[in-house]
Amino acid sequence: MSRCDPLATAIPPMKDLTTENITENVHIVNSQCRDPRLRYLHERIVTHLHDFCRETRLSTEEWQAGIQFLTEIGQISDDLRHEMILLSDTLGVSLLVDSINHPRREPATEGTVLGPFHTHDAKEKDNGAVLHSDPDATPLLVICSVKDTEGDPISDVKIDVWEGDSKGFYDVQDPNRTGPDGRGVLHSDKEGRFFFKAIVPVPYPIPMDGPVGGMLRRLGRHPNRPGHVHFMLDKPGYDLLITALYPRGDPYETSDPVFGVKESLIVDLSEVTDPAMASQYNVEMGTPLLTYDFVLLTDQQARDLRKQKAVEEMQKQNRDVVWHNGLPVPATGVQ
Amino acid sequence: MSRCDPLATAIPPMKDLTTENITENVHIVNSQCRDPRLRYLHERIVTHLHDFCRETRLSTEEWQAGIQFLTEIGQISDDLRHEMILLSDTLGVSLLVDSINHPRREPATEGTVLGPFHTHDAKEKDNGAVLHSDPDATPLLVICSVKDTEGDPISDVKIDVWEGDSKGFYDVQDPNRTGPDGRGVLHSDKEGRFFFKAIVPVPYPIPMDGPVGGMLRRLGRHPNRPGHVHFMLDKPGYDLLITALYPRGDPYETSDPVFGVKESLIVDLSEVTDPAMASQYNVEMGTPLLTYDFVLLTDQQARDLRKQKAVEEMQKQNRDVVWHNGLPVPATGVQ
Repeated sequence: MSRCDPLATAIPPMKDLTTENITENVHIVNSQCRDPRLRYLHERIVTHLHDFCRETRLSTEEWQAGIQFLTEIGQISDDLRHEMILLSDTLGVSLLVDSINHPRREPATEGTVLGPFHTHDAKEKDNGAVLHSDPDATPLLVICSVKDTEGDPISDVKIDVWEGDSKGFYDVQDPNRTGPDGRGVLHSDKEGRFFFKAIVPVPYPIPMDGPVGGMLRRLGRHPNRPGHVHFMLDKPGYDLLITALYPRGDPYETSDPVFGVKESLIVDLSEVTDPAMASQYNVEMGTPLLTYDFVLLTDQQARDLRKQKAVEEMQKQNRDVVWHNGLPVPATGVQ
Repeated sequence: MSRCDPLATAIPPMKDLTTENITENVHIVNSQCRDPRLRYLHERIVTHLHDFCRETRLSTEEWQAGIQFLTEIGQISDDLRHEMILLSDTLGVSLLVDSINHPRREPATEGTVLGPFHTHDAKEKDNGAVLHSDPDATPLLVICSVKDTEGDPISDVKIDVWEGDSKGFYDVQDPNRTGPDGRGVLHSDKEGRFFFKAIVPVPYPIPMDGPVGGMLRRLGRHPNRPGHVHFMLDKPGYDLLITALYPRGDPYETSDPVFGVKESLIVDLSEVTDPAMASQYNVEMGTPLLTYDFVLLTDQQARDLRKQKAVEEMQKQNRDVVWHNGLPVPATGVQ
């Protein structure tokens, strides 16, 4: 069908809209965007949203429920409550984005979700320090090392550590919080070692009183994260490692609601059985013991991996990559 | 890599998570959902969201910006402002969902977006009524018919009509609104005819002072909808038709920000040139004239079309359809 004469405007005319070609038409209108990366992001998200609607024959009532659900998530959110991040977490998106941005290869330690409980007020502590004041908790001796992929120790790595208490609560969840507890910032020594006294972590539920909780209930999912200790390892020249360690055997280990567990991050706790060790670390005999050897990638190693994977992913779309501020965009238009 | 023994829980164990298999793992956890339709919706949305992240190598900063954008859309929304719907509109999703739910085939009239300005307080009016009190507007005589696909007239169709004023504003945008203006509810007569006096519609901008306006600016898009008159045609036994007519030649006709224009809904205005007609409809000679013949599908015709398209779409996924409350779900699991 012919249209009226092209109008005096720089906008490329849309074609006659149908269920099938509306996606192409949205791309045409968005092609006015001058930022090639934003253009690419919109091309892909619009394509996927439309394919979702077409594949499912999304009903008007379902669309309305989705609009309402997303709106409520925004409305319940504030500086302390990040419900949209919780949605991203429970859909596996947060873990995926983290994996994309911090790719790993053997023998580097895998990352996992940051979670909502990291703070910036944790105090610098010496090796051997006690992180927790919780009198009901089971003490845990943690002895770790940090190495590069060649096996050489990395000294002076800044290690941010945080975990919940014996009830599964983080200090920031305590309305009477007066300062940091269950957290600290350590540094690796010349041999790349760091060690501290934590507590044996326990499972805890993610918030279930908002829209995301309603979604999990409708999906028949439970809210309980398996117990873990968070670590963030940072040193200039190395790719930031945000990760966590999960003592084996937690009942929720195979069904983490935010998909944070990876096989390589599950650890077998042992016990302090050597009197010399108990004396050296000033713990009682029989204290549970967690040991782990972290391996960091350099910035260059991580950058190379990211670029390689971006090229592979664009090849799946039969496109070549060009780079825009270090991020991939296709050399050619919509396929 | 082997995992610990399966735990005493009904939850299917997840595999070791990687960038590639996390999608499958989210499907495994969501497989606990007992509602097959909800399970299918989640399977498709999770697949598409993850593919979007993988294809674009979504950066952590872009993910944060997206979380913030969606949160702000919820926060600016209230009973009067529906910013999430505006997002859906400007991404072409609303039009697509409408087309899916109200499929059309020749010679049935195509639908388009409802928009945010429909109200339920429009008054019943007789044929020939004047819809608008705007003294600055150019009057428009509208003469229409309603038929079925066999060409037979349909009487007693309820027709809800609404449009903006000569400045492009709807009555509900007037803070001093005392009652409906520029709207009315008519009924087709025995010959399926209805007619009324409207005004020649003018373009108007969608709201640009919120997050969606910011998105349009970043995309280099303008906010102006081409002028149009809204129609909603309703009669038991027939598929509800929500549509609009767009006088040809509007400068924004080929770049509607909400993708509402379809070729078949663009109309050529003429003029009243016959003195008998001017007298019959009580308008001045030379009054702009809009004529249109609406064609409705029966409920059964629309239902058959919806089912046929749902089957075709599932076949593209190499799946068979089973029906759940009238909506399609796949007979087999994730492909």
